[in-house]
Amino acid sequence: MVVEVINTGTELLLGEILNTNFQYLSRHLNSLGFDVLYQTTIGDNPVRMRAAIEHALERADIVITSGGLGPTRGDITKEVVMEICGLEGYTDFSTLCRLYDFLAAKGVEPTPNNEKQAIVPFGADVLENPAGTAPGLWLEHQGKIIILLPGPPHEVEAVCETQLWPRLQKNFPDNGVIISRTLRLKGIGESAVATKIDDLIVNQSNPTLAIYARHGQILIRITTKTKTPEEAKALIGDMEAQLRARLEQYIYGADNDSVASVLGTKLNLLGKTIAFAESCSGGLASSLITDIPGSSEYLKGSVVSYTNEVKENVLGVKPETLKKFGAVSSQCACEMAAGVRRLMNSDYGISITGNAGPSPSEGKPVGLVYIAVANREIVYWQEHHFDGNRTENKLRIAEAAISTLIEKLQQL
Amino acid sequence: MVVEVINTGTELLLGEILNTNFQYLSRHLNSLGFDVLYQTTIGDNPVRMRAAIEHALERADIVITSGGLGPTRGDITKEVVMEICGLEGYTDFSTLCRLYDFLAAKGVEPTPNNEKQAIVPFGADVLENPAGTAPGLWLEHQGKIIILLPGPPHEVEAVCETQLWPRLQKNFPDNGVIISRTLRLKGIGESAVATKIDDLIVNQSNPTLAIYARHGQILIRITTKTKTPEEAKALIGDMEAQLRARLEQYIYGADNDSVASVLGTKLNLLGKTIAFAESCSGGLASSLITDIPGSSEYLKGSVVSYTNEVKENVLGVKPETLKKFGAVSSQCACEMAAGVRRLMNSDYGISITGNAGPSPSEGKPVGLVYIAVANREIVYWQEHHFDGNRTENKLRIAEAAISTLIEKLQQL
Repeated sequence: MVVEVINTGTELLLGEILNTNFQYLSRHLNSLGFDVLYQTTIGDNPVRMRAAIEHALERADIVITSGGLGPTRGDITKEVVMEICGLEGYTDFSTLCRLYDFLAAKGVEPTPNNEKQAIVPFGADVLENPAGTAPGLWLEHQGKIIILLPGPPHEVEAVCETQLWPRLQKNFPDNGVIISRTLRLKGIGESAVATKIDDLIVNQSNPTLAIYARHGQILIRITTKTKTPEEAKALIGDMEAQLRARLEQYIYGADNDSVASVLGTKLNLLGKTIAFAESCSGGLASSLITDIPGSSEYLKGSVVSYTNEVKENVLGVKPETLKKFGAVSSQCACEMAAGVRRLMNSDYGISITGNAGPSPSEGKPVGLVYIAVANREIVYWQEHHFDGNRTENKLRIAEAAISTLIEKLQQL
Repeated sequence: MVVEVINTGTELLLGEILNTNFQYLSRHLNSLGFDVLYQTTIGDNPVRMRAAIEHALERADIVITSGGLGPTRGDITKEVVMEICGLEGYTDFSTLCRLYDFLAAKGVEPTPNNEKQAIVPFGADVLENPAGTAPGLWLEHQGKIIILLPGPPHEVEAVCETQLWPRLQKNFPDNGVIISRTLRLKGIGESAVATKIDDLIVNQSNPTLAIYARHGQILIRITTKTKTPEEAKALIGDMEAQLRARLEQYIYGADNDSVASVLGTKLNLLGKTIAFAESCSGGLASSLITDIPGSSEYLKGSVVSYTNEVKENVLGVKPETLKKFGAVSSQCACEMAAGVRRLMNSDYGISITGNAGPSPSEGKPVGLVYIAVANREIVYWQEHHFDGNRTENKLRIAEAAISTLIEKLQQL
């Protein structure tokens, strides 16, 4: 079953918002065995939207739209689909009641334009929206399926989790499964990986292999389509073993692993605790760590020391160190790491001090960063150089600090 | 000039990575006066990619692809475009030299598959890539322009900033400009906004208005297309004044303003400093604050107190408070806010304590959060309930704390 996803909204074409819905939809549709082969973004223009949906109906079996079901005049997706299918609509009172209940629970007064959201084309099924006022819709038209979803990401997820995924699974039980596994590598380039596994890529059919670069990492994706999850897992397992035999030293994790989740698993195994002293990363390293459920088992706490005063008074960095070497120095990093470890009474203290940009400070260039890791006995430090913008640098710096700790856990 | 952007890569269709390139490209193309009317995502399949590019050439004047210029066998975009245009290629030695220099500077050995990246179709112009090995290309074909860009976002930006934007501006000097301004509202719903400004929307032509909901905010976008930026600014200014006359109390910012940038501007004006004590937000509030350049002027520092031990020993929360009310309580929030203000010697202390999920803790439900703001004299607190997943909750909690501080700055 070939699927096309159409994201509607002029705000998407203007670049005002980032389309996160497509990633969510495609990931889930693939895991349910659907071939998502096309995605299109189109604005709130009835002529172009109609042409795009009609084109999608030519090349796909299922067309899923997201966006344009709201109460405003710019919301036209339902109207365009009704025109394509030659359908009239009626006010669905159970949808209207749910809509009023939803607004009442939020303490919001309904307005007349909300009623438009309760109009349902004849023959369509309503996909209830537990998170908003715009319900989804399921229509069948000339042997094709058209599914209309709202635009806001949390509403898309709410409709899909409660309505759409169960219905697709029920209607297409023999769809098979497409399962992917992604190995995550650090410390090697894309073309070197491609060279090392070229023979595996050339001879691929099922599973297939793909290599790509992302955020300073190399990812290898193994994808397989089979009847059952068990068959898929066996095929993927075989391929993963071949890849690991050649690349094990570079593989730090898989799938949705992040450096934070890999660190969490290791710390839980070792029964050790950590604390961060963050300067230029501004709390982001701690935030990445606390994205992982259960991180309170090993993160005791952190200090964001954004001023020299806090470095001295809270972390115990010596005034002479700041005077002589500056806040962006290996000396300061080492005292911060040791200081936060003592303050938080943790097994390890990790510090980050540097300049995330956009301007040089203390005569130190943008992107120069010192990372230190302290245990009860010794302190280890590294110098790094980053060349992105401020927010990119913050992320790479925070991930570098977490990666450094993963390495050092074996040795310190 | 109508533009279609085609993002290529099976990893996009599998939902493994988020497409951020389209937002970057569309935002810039619009500001240069181009009408970006279509965006398509297609996998690394030569037949479907060819059909998608041919379809784009029918409906757009300029087709821009991103992705598929890498060294691996899965990178086929250039080959497909050469086939469509009936072009042969040659090895461009100056591109090959730059590629070798680029790799040498990174300390990476070139591999034979890198040479594929230096093949240039006859008649095409190279758009040098200062950030990677895959150069962009500019081709003209039957009166249309085809532009090929690499896939990694920092390479796309590097090629565009240094090559593509200057060339488009030079080639299309009379393009006019499309300029948008977005007003950001909090504390009002989408349908209420639509009702209040319905007459302005109905009568719109230039500028046009659009309303949409995003991350718990309502955005109103004013868009205008004119010959000069000055005319655009005047039209937008008039419309903004009309909108502010009706909605001023809900408008907290505009364009790329975030709650963190709005807070920063206010704190700079007042000459006041802040410090955060973060529990369930895990450092994210501090990280949002430090995303803003110059935030070291007002953020002294923060404590992530992820354990009761740190709440007691570092922030000075009383053991009785934790015993009697628990860490997720207004009492604990107030002591954390006062404690971090004292510790960091700041004008305001802001605390966040609660349960971001996924499981209840201390018998307190997921999503229950207390936020407190302390100055030297008094402490103010609020109770919040959030219903997203862990990472969504963290973001909403952090933004709620920053919003609370913005409000309280006027009063405390």
